[in-house]
Order: sequence, then structure tokens, then C-alpha cells
Amino acid sequence: MSEVFAVGIGQTEVGEHWDRSLRQLGAAAARAALADAGTDRVDALYVGNMLAGDLSGQHHLGPLIAEHAGLLGIEAVAVEAACGSGGAAFRTAFLAVASGHVEAALVVGVEKMTDRPGKEVTQGLVTAADADFESQIGLSFVAINALLMRRYLLEHRVSRDDFAPFIVNAHANAVHNPMAMYRFAVSAAEFSRQAMVADPISVLDSSPVCDGAAAVLLCSRDRARGLGRNAARVRACTVGTDTIALHDRRDPLELAAAVRSSRRAYELAGIQPRDIDLFEAHDAFSIMTALSLEAAGFAERGRGVAFGASGAIAIDGDLPLSTMGGLKARGHPVGATGVYQIAEVLLQLRGEAGQNQVKNATLGMAQNIGGSGATVVTTVLEAVR
Amino acid sequence: MSEVFAVGIGQTEVGEHWDRSLRQLGAAAARAALADAGTDRVDALYVGNMLAGDLSGQHHLGPLIAEHAGLLGIEAVAVEAACGSGGAAFRTAFLAVASGHVEAALVVGVEKMTDRPGKEVTQGLVTAADADFESQIGLSFVAINALLMRRYLLEHRVSRDDFAPFIVNAHANAVHNPMAMYRFAVSAAEFSRQAMVADPISVLDSSPVCDGAAAVLLCSRDRARGLGRNAARVRACTVGTDTIALHDRRDPLELAAAVRSSRRAYELAGIQPRDIDLFEAHDAFSIMTALSLEAAGFAERGRGVAFGASGAIAIDGDLPLSTMGGLKARGHPVGATGVYQIAEVLLQLRGEAGQNQVKNATLGMAQNIGGSGATVVTTVLEAVR
Repeated sequence: MSEVFAVGIGQTEVGEHWDRSLRQLGAAAARAALADAGTDRVDALYVGNMLAGDLSGQHHLGPLIAEHAGLLGIEAVAVEAACGSGGAAFRTAFLAVASGHVEAALVVGVEKMTDRPGKEVTQGLVTAADADFESQIGLSFVAINALLMRRYLLEHRVSRDDFAPFIVNAHANAVHNPMAMYRFAVSAAEFSRQAMVADPISVLDSSPVCDGAAAVLLCSRDRARGLGRNAARVRACTVGTDTIALHDRRDPLELAAAVRSSRRAYELAGIQPRDIDLFEAHDAFSIMTALSLEAAGFAERGRGVAFGASGAIAIDGDLPLSTMGGLKARGHPVGATGVYQIAEVLLQLRGEAGQNQVKNATLGMAQNIGGSGATVVTTVLEAVR
Repeated sequence: MSEVFAVGIGQTEVGEHWDRSLRQLGAAAARAALADAGTDRVDALYVGNMLAGDLSGQHHLGPLIAEHAGLLGIEAVAVEAACGSGGAAFRTAFLAVASGHVEAALVVGVEKMTDRPGKEVTQGLVTAADADFESQIGLSFVAINALLMRRYLLEHRVSRDDFAPFIVNAHANAVHNPMAMYRFAVSAAEFSRQAMVADPISVLDSSPVCDGAAAVLLCSRDRARGLGRNAARVRACTVGTDTIALHDRRDPLELAAAVRSSRRAYELAGIQPRDIDLFEAHDAFSIMTALSLEAAGFAERGRGVAFGASGAIAIDGDLPLSTMGGLKARGHPVGATGVYQIAEVLLQLRGEAGQNQVKNATLGMAQNIGGSGATVVTTVLEAVR
């Protein structure tokens, strides 16, 4: 159970990259992370991806990205947990380094979603849900989240306008993130007047379809010492799961996988939710932000939305949220998202978050969610100063 | 770097399971492995699968199989390395247990290929190759192997009939394997008169499209002691990679990823090829058997086919090969294959291989190949008596 350190970060801009292929995006993020860490020595590569088979006719991303990143021959595999693939790949790399068998492991999350028609993307995304009992009856992934949000509105007696602070905050933070897809502000009034995509979800509740890749280099304490600067320690990285179908859950408004994953992470790190200095939530849809805040212990059940309205989620608040724009405004290239989240936490811990810098950020947490909550990966990182 | 032990095996019969779904197959193998080990306590599940997204509209197999195997809530992710997915999932589980963070990890390889038309299966399988430079120009996966085999015939001056011993051996061994798809013998004469699928590959050079699932439970030394019987030690499990496209390789007839992976495995285990008592090769096509034997150091370059003809590969030979029928006759449910291979090695080491038992089997090796050799996972297991 050796300690594990994060020593390099790489990101491509999130957006519609019609001039850059899947492999080019993945390799670019990989090379950027290696350059950031100042090393070319990597023992293993873990690729987080969900849709390359469906949208690019390409499986087998391990050797493909290794080769194109200049790492021909190294151990390389892909890890898949729907929209939680990036976090799951990070967890796999973490275990590899912790085992002592791998000294330096590169995690690359990559997704290319904009080359195919929207219908194919929709069909691809819903493979995160239960094929036999959810997608088979016509549910899309937006529709599944709409069911969840409607239930939240009814059970907790809030309105959809109450979710506005999450969207306003995410867009405000994205303005200063050069990697973000939507670098513009959105007001609560604009949010309020949006047309529905799947009632009560509007386009501004939803993260965009996009392309992007992010990478993080993990290594042992010895290797981290050799590389010197800017290391952060992985205090915990945990995976919890739940039923894949929403209707099989005892309580659809409790993200049981997030509860399991968060509790275990706090236990391993020996901390409480109040010790966390910033939180990268999986705001694929605004309902997920509220549920994640509640499951992770930052807000009481049904109070996630009120927590958003309290001002606590601002960069200078008690729990800065989606500090670089979140899935909503930085963008959500699905299999890459979990790695973007962790890269952003690392930027904060290194004091490199620019105008979005959270003061004295020491402990940061990312929560990456697959499907409607069937997989949740929670990662807690600590600055090493 | 804790030691890792294999304590449970589960398999479903390989075949056309029109009455059993993807999740049912995966869960059945998982339950069988837990029953075999005599435990229900598992910390993590690693699912090897390649084509569920393409052929079943279902990603996110980690939580899906966990839930249906009665393991709701545990850590669970899917690992993908094309036809090497099963071996890659085993490697991931091995690292998880070796890290000390996971005490017992279940590996499930599962594939459901027969529910969709052949054209879709062909399109799915070729996603293991380079989408931009191989499948894009119309190469199928059989065609890629035919190119390799033709080159072998020309360069090493052998005939396609010389490959017959591999096929005769695999089918002879499958007769006594209750899990095998093709439990019938094939003669060299029958092999010789087959019509071509993609010249020089005939249907009898090729493994079948099929469904199946296999599982292995791995655990720490402490847990293995608690469970008692039938443990085997994982002496090495290594992953090597190569260029994804055949045409990018310096020498297409050398499986460089297999050379890397085998050498590292021998080094870690402190053994030589001659110490291996039986070898489960990745005989998806007969050309792969020859190349794998050569890359793993069992035969000189160009002598793999002669090695097959020497009698060494029989159950009572120097290196019993594909002892339960191999991919050719047990069947090749692609993402499950690597786990079937390891389960079969374990049966041999436990002395439970029935009429196919290799006498005094102490060290067994499995080699699982993804694509035309871009990923190779080599696993060496040792009987604990």
C-alpha cells in the first residue's frame, strides 16, 4: 500500500475538434502531462473512454494512445465505467502504483463525440443505462435525468429556477478557464427562460456534447521526489456502485454509490466533509449537482439546491464548486471528464488556477459519476508543500 | 507488492446462448467462481468485455454484473483491450490485490456475440484494429490475419497444411471439455480440404463467434489461507503492447508485444520457457498459435509450425497446448477468452482437468492477445500444494 503522488497534468481545450482525431487528442493530453512532469519514463497507461467503439469504430485505445503519445510498447489498457470512465481509469492507475509493480502510470481520459450525428451520440450515451429495461423502452439519458429532477422538485418542494445558482456559478468560472468550451457568463434570468429539452431539464441544465482529452501522471514517492516540483498526494480514490437502472433503487434521490464512495474516501483520508477546500462535482445535469452535494455530505438531504443558493459554492465561499466551469461549462467529453476534474483539483492545489484560484487550497475532492449513479468515483487530493 | 492467489473458478458453457443474456452469463460465471471458492466476500469486480456496447447497446458492465451476481454496491469497472480484455481485467485485479487496497477481487470475462447479424459482429471485431488505416480501407479482422499467415507461408516456406496439428490438437482436447463449443475431433485431412474464408485462412483456421463467460477469484495470502483448498499463486501477469496497425510494425512476423510480455513474465517469475508445464495459446487463428509459440520462446522464429508437428503440444508432450480446446474449439467469446484461458490453467494446476489432465502440472502459462498483436497479456500461475 505505497503512497501515490500526482506529478503531471495535461489538457486539451474542450470543444468541437473537427480537425483533431481521437488519437491526436489523447496523445496531446498525454504529451502535455509528461512535459508538465518533466519526464518521459512511464511504465503503464490507463485510458478512460466510453464511446470510441460506438462513435469512432475504434476499440483498443490502450496501445493506440500509447503509440501516438510516443510510448510504444508499454503496458496500456482502457477502463470503462460510462461517464465515470475517467475516474475509474485514475483509480486503476492509483492501484497500479500503490501495488509497487508500476512506478509511474499515466491516466488519459479521451472522448470524441462530435464527428457523428446527434442521434448516434444519444444512442451511445444511453448505453450507460440498463439496455434491457431503460433504453429498450425508449428512455434517453436526458429523460432519465429528467425523471430524477422531477421527483426532486416534487419531493423537496423546490422549483426548477432554484437550480440557477449552479449554472450561473459554473459559467462564471468557465470564463477564466482557457480549456473551457463555454467561456461566457449566464444569468439566472437566462436560465429561467430556457425552453425544455426534457421537462424539467432545459438546455442550460445540460452539459454539452463535445471532444477533449485530459491526462494526469501518477507515481511512487521515490519517483515524485526525483521529479521535484508540484506533486500532490492522492489521499483516497474510491469506487462505489449501485443498481444500473434507476427504477431498481430503493430511494432514487439518494445516490447510494456516492454515499458509499464518499464515506470510504473520508475514512481512508481520515477527514470530514468540512475539511474539503473545493469540490469538483459531476454536474452533467444540474440535478446531479444537488444529489452529489447531498450524498457526499456537504448538504442535508433535499438541501443541495439551497446550499447552491447560499453563496457557499463561489470561489471565495465555504465550498467552491466546479471551479473551472464544471461539466456544464468546461464541457463533458464523457470518458475524459473524470480526468479533467482531477486535473482541475490539481491546478487548484498547485496554486495555478489563475483568476479562479481558491485561496489556501490544501484538500480538493472530485466526484465522477457513471450513468444515473451506478458508478461513483471519489478522489481526494492533498497539496504537498 | 503483496502476493496474489487464485482461489475460485467459474465458467459457463461456450456456445450460442439464445436463451441467456449478457448479464445472466456474466452473473452465472461470477456465482460459480464464488461457490467454488466458498465465499461471498468480494471487494472489487473487474469485467473483461469488448463488444457489449456494439452488440448489446450496453456499456457500464461493472455495476451491471456486480448487481446481477449479488454483489450490489462493490467497486466494479470494465477493462477493455480488444480480444485481450479478459487477460487485461485479470491483470487489473492482480494489481488491485497486490496493492493491499483490495483483499479479494473477482475477474469476470463475458461476451455475447450471437444475438446480432454477422455483419455487425464483423464490424465490431475490426474495432480491435486501426480504424483510420485498417478497417477504413475495408480490412476485416480475418483479412488482417490472412495477410499475416500469407507472409508466414512465404517467408518461412511452409504450406497451410502444416498448420493442421494445431487444429487437430485443439479439437481433440475439446472433446473432453464440458464447457467447449465444439466437442468433436477434426482430422488433418478435413482441415486440408476446407474452403477458404480469406485465403489462406479456412473456417478451420478460425475460432468461432460465440457467447460465454468465465470468472476467477483472486485474493491476498491471508484470505487464501482462510479459504483453504485449491489456491494457485500468480507468479507473473504482464502486459506488453505494440503498434495497433499491422503495417506499422518493423517485422510483422514477430509479435513484439508478446516478446515483451513473455520476457518480463519469465524475469518476474525467475523461470525459463522450459519450466512451463502447459501453455494456453491465443489460437484465434492458427497463424496466431505459431507466432505466439515463437514470441514466447517455445520455438525458434519460423519453427512454430514444426513445433506443432513434433508432438510436443499433446497432453503428454513437452508443452501441452490449448489443453481444453483453445479458442479454436472451446470457443472465443472475445472479451471472456483471457479468463477462460486462466481458468483452464487453474484446472490443470488443481488436477481437475479430467481426461485432459497434464501430469504433475506445476507451472502453467496463458497468453491472451488483443488485435493482431497490439496487446499481449502473459500470465504464469503456479500450483500451491
